[in-house]
Amino acid sequence: MNGTNFIGKTPSAKGSTTFHATNPATGEQLQPAYHEATLDEVANAAQKAAEAFQVYRKKSAVEKAQFLEAIADEIMALGDKLGQRYCAESGLAEARFQGERARTVFQLRFYAQHIREGFWLDARIDPPLPDRQPLPRPDLRSMHQAIGPVGVFGASNFPLAYSVAGGDTATALAAGCTVLVKAHPAHPGTCELVASAILKAAEKTGMPDGVFGMVHGTSTAVGMGIVQHPAIKAVGFTGSFRGGKALFDAAAQRPEPIPVYAEMGSTNPVFILPGALRQNGSDIAKGLAASVTLGVGQFCTSPGLTIIEKSGEGSSFLNVLSQNIGAAAPGTMLTEGIHHAYLQGLAAMSQQPGVKELAKGQSAKAANQGEAHLLGVNATNFLANKKLEEEVFGPSTLAIQTGSKEELLKVAKSLGGHLTASVFGSPADLEEYRDLIDLLAQKAGRLIINGYPTGVEVSHAMVHGGPFPATTDSRTTSVGTAAITRFSRPVCYQNFPQSLLPDELKDDNPLNIWRLWDGSWTK
Amino acid sequence: MNGTNFIGKTPSAKGSTTFHATNPATGEQLQPAYHEATLDEVANAAQKAAEAFQVYRKKSAVEKAQFLEAIADEIMALGDKLGQRYCAESGLAEARFQGERARTVFQLRFYAQHIREGFWLDARIDPPLPDRQPLPRPDLRSMHQAIGPVGVFGASNFPLAYSVAGGDTATALAAGCTVLVKAHPAHPGTCELVASAILKAAEKTGMPDGVFGMVHGTSTAVGMGIVQHPAIKAVGFTGSFRGGKALFDAAAQRPEPIPVYAEMGSTNPVFILPGALRQNGSDIAKGLAASVTLGVGQFCTSPGLTIIEKSGEGSSFLNVLSQNIGAAAPGTMLTEGIHHAYLQGLAAMSQQPGVKELAKGQSAKAANQGEAHLLGVNATNFLANKKLEEEVFGPSTLAIQTGSKEELLKVAKSLGGHLTASVFGSPADLEEYRDLIDLLAQKAGRLIINGYPTGVEVSHAMVHGGPFPATTDSRTTSVGTAAITRFSRPVCYQNFPQSLLPDELKDDNPLNIWRLWDGSWTK
Repeated sequence: MNGTNFIGKTPSAKGSTTFHATNPATGEQLQPAYHEATLDEVANAAQKAAEAFQVYRKKSAVEKAQFLEAIADEIMALGDKLGQRYCAESGLAEARFQGERARTVFQLRFYAQHIREGFWLDARIDPPLPDRQPLPRPDLRSMHQAIGPVGVFGASNFPLAYSVAGGDTATALAAGCTVLVKAHPAHPGTCELVASAILKAAEKTGMPDGVFGMVHGTSTAVGMGIVQHPAIKAVGFTGSFRGGKALFDAAAQRPEPIPVYAEMGSTNPVFILPGALRQNGSDIAKGLAASVTLGVGQFCTSPGLTIIEKSGEGSSFLNVLSQNIGAAAPGTMLTEGIHHAYLQGLAAMSQQPGVKELAKGQSAKAANQGEAHLLGVNATNFLANKKLEEEVFGPSTLAIQTGSKEELLKVAKSLGGHLTASVFGSPADLEEYRDLIDLLAQKAGRLIINGYPTGVEVSHAMVHGGPFPATTDSRTTSVGTAAITRFSRPVCYQNFPQSLLPDELKDDNPLNIWRLWDGSWTK
Repeated sequence: MNGTNFIGKTPSAKGSTTFHATNPATGEQLQPAYHEATLDEVANAAQKAAEAFQVYRKKSAVEKAQFLEAIADEIMALGDKLGQRYCAESGLAEARFQGERARTVFQLRFYAQHIREGFWLDARIDPPLPDRQPLPRPDLRSMHQAIGPVGVFGASNFPLAYSVAGGDTATALAAGCTVLVKAHPAHPGTCELVASAILKAAEKTGMPDGVFGMVHGTSTAVGMGIVQHPAIKAVGFTGSFRGGKALFDAAAQRPEPIPVYAEMGSTNPVFILPGALRQNGSDIAKGLAASVTLGVGQFCTSPGLTIIEKSGEGSSFLNVLSQNIGAAAPGTMLTEGIHHAYLQGLAAMSQQPGVKELAKGQSAKAANQGEAHLLGVNATNFLANKKLEEEVFGPSTLAIQTGSKEELLKVAKSLGGHLTASVFGSPADLEEYRDLIDLLAQKAGRLIINGYPTGVEVSHAMVHGGPFPATTDSRTTSVGTAAITRFSRPVCYQNFPQSLLPDELKDDNPLNIWRLWDGSWTK
């Protein structure tokens, strides 16, 4: 590792500002020093991405798929070296590394397979109607094509699956876009290793120099340099509300505004209905405690709000939840900054009117360890205070007790946008609370019945998104095959001779992809 | 007609500011006086749309389709009264009224049919994999649902097809959104008549009060009041760059940003290649003159840029084009303001370095008549001056002569975003200029071979959109079935019992719609 930026494949370290990664578990400063990119380097990297786009966009789906698959292979080929650096930089355990690497590699291969099948293109063919009156209908064919170079901002909490070769990069490359990554300063070494894998894969599969580049930076200037560069045509981001909203604002204010897909997290309300409380409240409480503390609560889908009725069963549920939160071991958080923000968030939350601490997990035994917390508040106080819906990133949840179904619906109605909303209920509950489910469908990207929100499947039907402020664009998902379409726009070809049409739109369907022919899907 | 706003179905005229429509052909002031909405009225109308949304969003596809079809019927039932007012307010001819009404009614019925078929929903079902290792896959199903109340801003140039019951309203209602229209002040009477048809259709088909509302205004305050109201969740707009960009900026700066689909027009470059010039330059010139002057040049897809080679054939082409533009009759423009802007635009264009007037159509014989104009410039001057690409709304085109293929490609490369780009070429031309076509695919939403850009089909494969500044959102279209999806967002249902799922996602597909089942489209 050499601590440089990558202008396309060329290492570059022209800036004098450097920074190091730190092991959050030990406080140890990790080598090498990383060079923050200068604004010239950022501009050069964006320019390189624009030049490469003119070559990469013309690669066939098979060639792009092979590139994605080669990235997966090269990530695996990094072997233990990647795991060691990942664990050192993130404080996450080896088993988590294994799981996250498997997910990262799976998603690259899944998207590769998907672009071979081609239905993300939304290819449509309206055959001509030469005899139509009063005017003939021309031959019209449309499909999506890559939007241009994409800026990707990875998340701290998934140093692989939502970072350099994570979901945004994989879907942008799948769509035919080149990618310029802003490396996350919490895990620059992991970023560099993965970048080296991508560059090796690009070389092996004959991709143009500039198909991928990466710049480092701890300041906001580097990220703003990417978003404001005219060559960049879309942005993918996973992280905090403040960060995502700042990029969204900058992108909207460009002379040419561009889309920003910022996934900014949420508090993922979990409603536990009376019948479920009676029938298996204790099991749900245990499962919920596990979901709250999973990965030290550092997931976008971590359940930060728990809504139950004020009743004997509700109290029993809270007792079991308290016991399980109380027994939870502390865990090293991703960075000192995140641990600090967690403490601050908890302190601020605890001071809000009516908020009480119901349980605290085992005490921290080392630096930057997050302790589990269960806070409680009644619905009246929750409804009166917007702050209580804000994300406290870490292993805590706020239990809200409601005095009636009406009050529970009021709580649901008061919610802003979330990535997920979960409902535990008996069959009778679910019938009785149809209006709750209907309300939640307006608040979240994914609704879960009798399950916890943590765990995001990479598939066709997944929606990892939701209304603002969970994301800056509710119209899409950042996980699953529908995420590819984010980085494209439709183009219509009118009266084109067969020889000039893209293969995807030719009469004989040489690529054997799904197409909407005169209003029906065919292959 | 009574000159009021509609807060849902309730007429309201609380403001003291009034205005009248004017017949642009005669200068006659038309009755009645229209009451500009107060900001309270705007807020009440938005609130009403939000309340109605909670009812309308649950209507079945069949019920929504019947509502759209009833609107079409009620528009037809307005009969001659609508045509008389349309012609008086717009200066457009009776034949144009007939054609535009047919289009408006067709598109309502087409979208109605389409939502019955349901593929706009992008319904996806990933069956559970209970035995998958290391973890089972849950049951995941997703589909699009209405985004919320939509603000619609109609265009002056299509008082029916892109106005109160035009494409934006039809697609928003089809998606399940309620609609609040800002009536266009150039044709308030046409707006009122169409609004009455929509309200009648809503009543006949049992739609909730507030499914449709309409406010009048000549100031920007009324429009801003719509865009900034928290109940409004998306905006459709057709009109000028200045207007669309102002709405886009306001929407992005809301506490909760919302999407704005502003179709702001473009100059629709037409490239005529050497072989085509030789083989049938004269016919193309005649056709182009007709396209330039069609509807007094008042189409978003009017060809404002004509690119030809500097050659003997190029000169012959320009001669025929000059003759045909020179012979073109003047036509009444939509408003005094539009006529004035056309004169100003022409004057500004004529004063740019190197721009020459090549031909002028027949002189105006009455007020507000637009005369056809052909201007010319060489490629060097065009490439040096961004202003020459700006839209001059009216019956004119700027001919750009290029000295070489390289120069022609430079012109293509210099272009910003356009709704369309057209290429006339012989088979040999088209092979030789593949790079031109590839370049134009990055600049426009629709590419046309050997055809003129005017004429926008309502179908599945149509793309009426394009990169900024043609629109504020290149990722979609404002015409065709794909336009419905603009007003929706995806929601994923995880582990839902069959009884709680929307019919669209139930195992047995009771609505018989297209769905992506485990990665394959089925019905």
